[in-house]
Amino acid sequence: MSRMSLPESHPLASGLTADAPLIAAYTGRTPSRRPVWFMRQAGRSLPEYRALRQGTDMLQSCLTPELASEITLQPVRRHDVDAGIFFSDIMVPLLLAGLDVRIESGVGPVFGEPITTAAAVDALPALEEAALAPITEAVRLTVAELGSTPLIGFAGAPFTLAAYMVEGKPSRDHLGARRLMHREPETWQRLLAWTAQVSGAFLRAQVLAGASAAQLFDSWGGSLSRSDYERFVAPASSAVLAAVADLGVPTVHFGVGTGELLPSMHAAGGDVMGVDYRLPLEEAERRLGGGVPLQGNIDPALLGAGWRPLAEATLQVMAGGEAAPGHVINLGHGVPADTDPEVLTRLVSFIHSVPVDADPRQVRIDEA
Amino acid sequence: MSRMSLPESHPLASGLTADAPLIAAYTGRTPSRRPVWFMRQAGRSLPEYRALRQGTDMLQSCLTPELASEITLQPVRRHDVDAGIFFSDIMVPLLLAGLDVRIESGVGPVFGEPITTAAAVDALPALEEAALAPITEAVRLTVAELGSTPLIGFAGAPFTLAAYMVEGKPSRDHLGARRLMHREPETWQRLLAWTAQVSGAFLRAQVLAGASAAQLFDSWGGSLSRSDYERFVAPASSAVLAAVADLGVPTVHFGVGTGELLPSMHAAGGDVMGVDYRLPLEEAERRLGGGVPLQGNIDPALLGAGWRPLAEATLQVMAGGEAAPGHVINLGHGVPADTDPEVLTRLVSFIHSVPVDADPRQVRIDEA
Repeated sequence: MSRMSLPESHPLASGLTADAPLIAAYTGRTPSRRPVWFMRQAGRSLPEYRALRQGTDMLQSCLTPELASEITLQPVRRHDVDAGIFFSDIMVPLLLAGLDVRIESGVGPVFGEPITTAAAVDALPALEEAALAPITEAVRLTVAELGSTPLIGFAGAPFTLAAYMVEGKPSRDHLGARRLMHREPETWQRLLAWTAQVSGAFLRAQVLAGASAAQLFDSWGGSLSRSDYERFVAPASSAVLAAVADLGVPTVHFGVGTGELLPSMHAAGGDVMGVDYRLPLEEAERRLGGGVPLQGNIDPALLGAGWRPLAEATLQVMAGGEAAPGHVINLGHGVPADTDPEVLTRLVSFIHSVPVDADPRQVRIDEA
Repeated sequence: MSRMSLPESHPLASGLTADAPLIAAYTGRTPSRRPVWFMRQAGRSLPEYRALRQGTDMLQSCLTPELASEITLQPVRRHDVDAGIFFSDIMVPLLLAGLDVRIESGVGPVFGEPITTAAAVDALPALEEAALAPITEAVRLTVAELGSTPLIGFAGAPFTLAAYMVEGKPSRDHLGARRLMHREPETWQRLLAWTAQVSGAFLRAQVLAGASAAQLFDSWGGSLSRSDYERFVAPASSAVLAAVADLGVPTVHFGVGTGELLPSMHAAGGDVMGVDYRLPLEEAERRLGGGVPLQGNIDPALLGAGWRPLAEATLQVMAGGEAAPGHVINLGHGVPADTDPEVLTRLVSFIHSVPVDADPRQVRIDEA
């Protein structure tokens, strides 16, 4: 893996995080312990987060470096997870480009003006590099604290961003976006190219400032047929990942409900594939034809189902990841807001207690 | 197909609908024209529906026989579709059993009290057969008008009903229900058995009163892994379909986002499988191992994408269904509320204009 373009002081380039369990597993090497982190580990499930966020708007928190950094660090301290995931939002680069978007509590991203016409797409503003300064600063502060624990940068995939932009708000079927791609394929393509550009710049800024890995999130990709994904979406997702390709950090590609799209998503990009909770890792491995490190995929519902079902499912996930050249344990979707943080801490400790060379099928579950 | 238990005057038993294109395709015979109907054809997309419903609550409309019947007939008159789908709601049998449920406009089903404990499950009331009288009456009125056009009865699948009951309202991930199944499998099983019982009674009442086919809808089944579906859900879905098995009408089993579950759903029951828009019919046919009539699966997004993309996709769907022993054209999900009804009328006419023995790949699309 070439890391020519990373500054020498970068945690991965300097070797600080290069042998961390997360990076070892992402790059197909044997980690010193079974690496685990949780999507949405930073944020709403932690009381210290809710205390810190009080009175500060979501996107404003993302743009306040000290706050974003502290929120990123909270779950690493509390749970002993093997990575920090940068606290931000996939909408941040859109806001920084000048779009009128806010995160409404209990709703999600809401736009002042949905982007539905060719004229609106053509009028989308460029994202100036200088606007990303709060992101760069927050990442710098964070990696200085994290030491040898890698930080994962992330960005939203173009389809997911465009689905929000066209609807102007969250929707279940993303009909507006999916109509536009068929009705005005050229407008759609320009919209996706714009989202790829701003998301790529957002991801690149995080990596250059110190993130040792980068994850692309496609929350709504599961609403697409495979042929629509390949025709209308994959090239733009490729473009986001290409924006960090020269930096040589491992990239992870994850989507929700995208088991059917897995090979197409991998073809679009990603050194590692994140797997939704619905698809057994053995089946993911089979669909990818082998040779791809995997991340996932404990069902988040199990976090609230009691210890034994959770521990059993975790061992099953460990066993499922064995055929892959590397496996980072995670959920198959984000941490639910009402999760008991102590369950997460216990789960991390349980995962770390299983030696990397142990057979997960032989592990006894301590009921206490 | 035995129809011993249907009253002699039943449209299917009497032969009135037995050779209708829909029934021919559902039973693997060659229809006289390509049958088509649309999920959610009755209702919100039609101005005559919105006029009729004014001032009447959704569930009240379902329980007013003249109204439910007229709403069912509206799209048959307007579009010349090959079936009526009974206008009702999957929540109706729950309401008739005595649960405190209403449909909030723009939200969906909302319960006065979510069902989350073993005690609440044990206290669920039985559905008395007499309570189904308004359903029976509405179906009778409807089939008297429909003549040789078959009426399709329907019911909600147990998982979908339970997901609403446990959450108390619509949710994205159905975490409450999915937690309960793992945390308290016995409580879950009793809850599912109850939903299967009331949904089965609802479906049976429609068939006995004159429906010539029956469809089971599993709107939220796509949130389950295949192993969870098979373990926690499939037996209850089987039980609903078993409630009409002795009546000998064709049954259709449909779920949203359930491409991965298709073989398990078919194993649970259904003479015909409804296919979500994400999965090409060729692939559905392959997964089912052949021999199963299919229904579907035009992407509803295409109804708003202009005529050429819609017509092209329709021809592709027709071609995809050719390998199946029977194919009923439908959407791969419901009609969006903002659909232009004239597009639906034109689509039906276009589908009927393609002879059953024509190769859809050779059909020219009239741009006008």
